[in-house]
Amino acid sequence: MKQKKNVTFNDIAKYTNFSKTTISRYFNNPDSLTLENQEIIAKALVELGYKENKVARILANGKTEFIGIIIPHLHNHYYSEMLNQILLTYEKFGYKFLVFIGNEHEETERQYIEELLAYKIEGLIILSHTIPSKELADLNIPIVTIEREDRYVCSVNTDNHMGGVQAASLLAKHNCDILIHINSPTSTDVPAYGRITGFLEICEEKHLNHRIIYRELGKSYEEMQENALDIITELDEIYPGQKKGLFISNDTHANVFLNLLMRKHGKLPDDYLIVGFDDSPISREAVIPISTIGQQIDKIASEAVSLLVEQMNERKKRKPVPLKEPIHKVVTPILCRRETTEK
Amino acid sequence: MKQKKNVTFNDIAKYTNFSKTTISRYFNNPDSLTLENQEIIAKALVELGYKENKVARILANGKTEFIGIIIPHLHNHYYSEMLNQILLTYEKFGYKFLVFIGNEHEETERQYIEELLAYKIEGLIILSHTIPSKELADLNIPIVTIEREDRYVCSVNTDNHMGGVQAASLLAKHNCDILIHINSPTSTDVPAYGRITGFLEICEEKHLNHRIIYRELGKSYEEMQENALDIITELDEIYPGQKKGLFISNDTHANVFLNLLMRKHGKLPDDYLIVGFDDSPISREAVIPISTIGQQIDKIASEAVSLLVEQMNERKKRKPVPLKEPIHKVVTPILCRRETTEK
Repeated sequence: MKQKKNVTFNDIAKYTNFSKTTISRYFNNPDSLTLENQEIIAKALVELGYKENKVARILANGKTEFIGIIIPHLHNHYYSEMLNQILLTYEKFGYKFLVFIGNEHEETERQYIEELLAYKIEGLIILSHTIPSKELADLNIPIVTIEREDRYVCSVNTDNHMGGVQAASLLAKHNCDILIHINSPTSTDVPAYGRITGFLEICEEKHLNHRIIYRELGKSYEEMQENALDIITELDEIYPGQKKGLFISNDTHANVFLNLLMRKHGKLPDDYLIVGFDDSPISREAVIPISTIGQQIDKIASEAVSLLVEQMNERKKRKPVPLKEPIHKVVTPILCRRETTEK
Repeated sequence: MKQKKNVTFNDIAKYTNFSKTTISRYFNNPDSLTLENQEIIAKALVELGYKENKVARILANGKTEFIGIIIPHLHNHYYSEMLNQILLTYEKFGYKFLVFIGNEHEETERQYIEELLAYKIEGLIILSHTIPSKELADLNIPIVTIEREDRYVCSVNTDNHMGGVQAASLLAKHNCDILIHINSPTSTDVPAYGRITGFLEICEEKHLNHRIIYRELGKSYEEMQENALDIITELDEIYPGQKKGLFISNDTHANVFLNLLMRKHGKLPDDYLIVGFDDSPISREAVIPISTIGQQIDKIASEAVSLLVEQMNERKKRKPVPLKEPIHKVVTPILCRRETTEK
């Protein structure tokens, strides 16, 4: 292919009869020109076949329009759909995203952040759990985290406490004899801990017979199945014939319990009700659609990018005012009633 | 936070007693220095607290170390896991990835590619189907596509024909009375068309009773369920009591058929065998694990990045030799026998 000669600011200035300073202002601060003059220059760029060299422009004004994202992995729907929704904001805000999979390697994440800073990214969205928020805050660049420890940085999270309240209330409404919350051991400083406090609040307020089973179910489907089978065997022994309302901390695990019960009984037996969390595709694709607490992933993603853009814009002002306190936004979850409770 | 003064090449030269040219060579062509001298400079950088400005370096040597990725969406496992595996190659190759969700908006994709080119990306990996390979080839930058029309560009694909052969052979081995392939209407120029030719090859070679049902099953789970129910009703009418071997074009759809049969019969009835395609998580998380043709996503991803890196490295040579013909690599799929065939 024939390579065209690069069009310079000089060429554009000559072509439009503007000064080179005016052309430079068009690229770096277009609103300082009248709309009419902006249009004249824009038209000239097309006619001259101007190809923008963003790298040179970044050196001139320091705005890379890059946002870094660090995400633990994309194996589950929650993370992949969150990334999907974040990336889609390109059409609204124009920011480009450099995406990195942390894979829980703390040191690789640090190295990657170093690299991103060297590329002059304007902001960071962090979903991985490895680096403490104190250290992130010290990077001194706009940051928003999602569903992780967030004391020292801005964040957008699901209202997990409300989710726990919704799940327990639904099971209570169906007059379960015992409410059982199944979760892995959860640190009190991650937002998901709210699922436990919300569940407990309703159980205590309504004086309901309840129990929390903390158990790491494992990574592979086979491990999860084995651990879930143990739990079901135990529940069948302790609460025979009683109506058991299970609130399970995510839909992947809820599906494992549902499948075990289906295979044993050919249907979901009348003494089991199940509520999951997330509204991930498996809750709809399960053999019987699973009732769940739906996270509004699209809303969380757009709130996170908005919050980041606000901070990045503040930085570009002549006298930026830093945030006094980190901002923490919460998004309300949505109760989805399906066949595992509404029989 | 206190901002440190930037460390310049001059500072490093003074500190190490090397010339500025040597320092510059260290950054742009380190192998032109002895290992010993490289180490002296590396040590000095740490001691001086040098922060690299990659943007400036890019202007100097034109190597951004950026690869652009265009992917249709991340709603299904195939795309999200492929992206996951591509991003993980950072640890091996050091390239950073700018990721874009195309969402089948051809014009937005073109606009995004324009932007990427302005940022001097070194290569592109394309999974979206919208822009013809002829047009991609004309961008005149290293490109690798995955599982899409690829006549004019390099690509890495699953050996789809082999997958069709594997599926039909498995069903034949189980002495099905009729082999049925269920797929959406597929263009002959996409790699996935091979699933159909592979299925037909075995059926014709072994003179097996067979049939292909082309049907768009829809986007929502409810639509898929409705269309799948129509097909099952029809098959039950036409082939009552006959052993039906279903080869379904992906695991998501295979799971819809399985769930319908499970809910109707409380188990998978003896006259139905099911084989899916992809080995996506749903095939393992289904109420009964689904037999499937597994795509080696990790291998496809690493082959794609390797193939791209080779082309990008060639470009950096003094006299790059362009490829005479695009390279097309195929990765063999793996047959996973599970409970929907091995009863």
